[in-house]
Amino acid sequence: MSVARIAVVGGDGIGTEVTAQARKVVDAVLPGVDYNEYDLGARLYHRTGEVLPQSVQDELAGHDAILLGAIGDPSVPPGVLERGLLLRLRFDFDQYVNLRPSKLWPGTSSPLAGVKPGEIDMVVVREGTEGLYVGAGGVLHKNTPAEIATEESLNTRHGVERVVRDAFARAQRRDRRHVTLVHKTNVLTHAGNLWSRAFAAVAAEFPEVTTEYQHIDAASMFMVSNPQRFDVVVTDNLFGDILTDIAAAVTGGIGMAASGSVNPERLYPSTFEPVHGSAPDIAGKGIADPAAAILSAALLLEHLGKLDEARRVTEAVAAEVASRAPGAPLRTAEVGDRVASAL
Amino acid sequence: MSVARIAVVGGDGIGTEVTAQARKVVDAVLPGVDYNEYDLGARLYHRTGEVLPQSVQDELAGHDAILLGAIGDPSVPPGVLERGLLLRLRFDFDQYVNLRPSKLWPGTSSPLAGVKPGEIDMVVVREGTEGLYVGAGGVLHKNTPAEIATEESLNTRHGVERVVRDAFARAQRRDRRHVTLVHKTNVLTHAGNLWSRAFAAVAAEFPEVTTEYQHIDAASMFMVSNPQRFDVVVTDNLFGDILTDIAAAVTGGIGMAASGSVNPERLYPSTFEPVHGSAPDIAGKGIADPAAAILSAALLLEHLGKLDEARRVTEAVAAEVASRAPGAPLRTAEVGDRVASAL
Ligand SMILES: CC(C)[C@H](C(=O)O)[C@@H](O)C(=O)O
Ligand SMILES: CC(C)[C@H](C(=O)O)[C@@H](O)C(=O)O
Repeated sequence: MSVARIAVVGGDGIGTEVTAQARKVVDAVLPGVDYNEYDLGARLYHRTGEVLPQSVQDELAGHDAILLGAIGDPSVPPGVLERGLLLRLRFDFDQYVNLRPSKLWPGTSSPLAGVKPGEIDMVVVREGTEGLYVGAGGVLHKNTPAEIATEESLNTRHGVERVVRDAFARAQRRDRRHVTLVHKTNVLTHAGNLWSRAFAAVAAEFPEVTTEYQHIDAASMFMVSNPQRFDVVVTDNLFGDILTDIAAAVTGGIGMAASGSVNPERLYPSTFEPVHGSAPDIAGKGIADPAAAILSAALLLEHLGKLDEARRVTEAVAAEVASRAPGAPLRTAEVGDRVASAL
Repeated sequence: MSVARIAVVGGDGIGTEVTAQARKVVDAVLPGVDYNEYDLGARLYHRTGEVLPQSVQDELAGHDAILLGAIGDPSVPPGVLERGLLLRLRFDFDQYVNLRPSKLWPGTSSPLAGVKPGEIDMVVVREGTEGLYVGAGGVLHKNTPAEIATEESLNTRHGVERVVRDAFARAQRRDRRHVTLVHKTNVLTHAGNLWSRAFAAVAAEFPEVTTEYQHIDAASMFMVSNPQRFDVVVTDNLFGDILTDIAAAVTGGIGMAASGSVNPERLYPSTFEPVHGSAPDIAGKGIADPAAAILSAALLLEHLGKLDEARRVTEAVAAEVASRAPGAPLRTAEVGDRVASAL
């Protein structure tokens, strides 16, 4: 019997290069994993017109987790691969916790003056199956002066409460035990009110966790002026998309930004992927930094209950990054080798 | 006959303190303005339950412009003053160009390491009358497990095209002549497609202006990692709200962030206000920085065609800020006096 069944979707551009290193590292720390590689992304789309064939999705469903590289290519119209693959996995596999830790690691530097490694350490729990991402919208009178296009944000008590509860449970296990709700309750009064009430109700279940509310515009500003103040942040799908990119920027860019699209109950496989994109400009050159992909694999291990393995991988990546000579050229495979051999 | 009729809405908290200085400065540079003060905000709301009586709105409509301080108080439920006053003015007075310049001024410092005054100089043209701000949404089955809340983003070709055209016209008058469209076309495919097509159509009218597209998450990251790259940014109402706060943060905070909610055709009065809030914690102490309010008055002068006066006010504020001794206590009225006497 295999230790775990992991589907590997390298995807486009540097995606396949970085997942290869993540896999190498998982092998080093947890032998006996079963892998299945799936060739999805721009290539499949151009060859067949399909993004995620139902048969492939059914196969993916049989795995414990999905390790994803990057999806996206300028040759494909916006939204096709994103909606057809990434978002389809999030929605169909009910990956409602979109998990994005941001840490300023030793050896990396923040663009913010005077902020030192260790000072920023937060996790954004972004809702993953609702909000403006549901694809509810349309267009009328296209290409006429009377044209109108709509996008609708759908927020259910069910969907909001479960992700907020997940955020509180995470905060409960952390040192600072603090949760910040980010929304825009003064403008999006309907959705904001639902989020606020669900947040207050769940907060009552966690008396040891302190709470705070910030509007998305203020939170975005604080991410720059005082990112140290954040511990756990919970927010909706779109606000989370934006906030996590700012969080990545202030912790030195997306080079170390890992993410998981998680179904906590493990009724469906969860997807783990670096926040960075497919970077077509450097694809195939072997110079992409696999750190974020390997850290994503650590989140995957944690999700599978391999807590010790997850911690060791994270520490090995941190040590490798800290040991890099400034300005030295980076080789994707060598980073993977160094991390793997440290384990 | 008066030079101009300006309605002054000091509002809540520090709002009245900073608008008093802005008015002082306008008087110094442009004598003969007619002012009418309106007491709107939390006080009126608590006294009468009204936010913007129709009779007051009718009077405001008779002015050339509105100088606004700040609206908002923790004693009022979220959304009441924002929707009832700020957004009502923007919508009813068709203030579709929400103008937000961001500049790193000499004497101020960016939280970003190594970024020097002069290097950041952008203007965000935020759509002001559409998108998620229209208030289309609702709630069903409130306070039950089946509750759902919606928010709808409405985008018309009419509304998008006119704000995009305004952005291009501004870019055409600037040195770098560059416009960045920010949206999330890969997820908000309907609205994103309308914005993209309107942007392309207007771009064809301005062959001298170069263009670029960025997703909101990437743009938020670039605001931190490379804000120098932005010249004119055009985006929707909510994305503009978020981006301009990040832009303010990287240019040293909201102390210098001015804004105008503009009806370019001057069919209705435009509103000019600092981006900062009412700051109840420091209200009444005479220590609020009026720089952003005075710079907002400069935008007001520019809107009224007083270009030379606008430039002089802006330069006087810049000089005053550059002359401040680091760490010295700030007195609201003294800042206003110094700027006014320099004119
Ligand atoms: C590619 C895109 C659909 C996706 C998102 O918006 O969620 C990405 O930006 C992310 O953050 O994972
Ligand atoms: C107070 C609020 C309604 C407003 C907005 O969201 O537009 C403010 O944040 C702003 O940016 O002017």
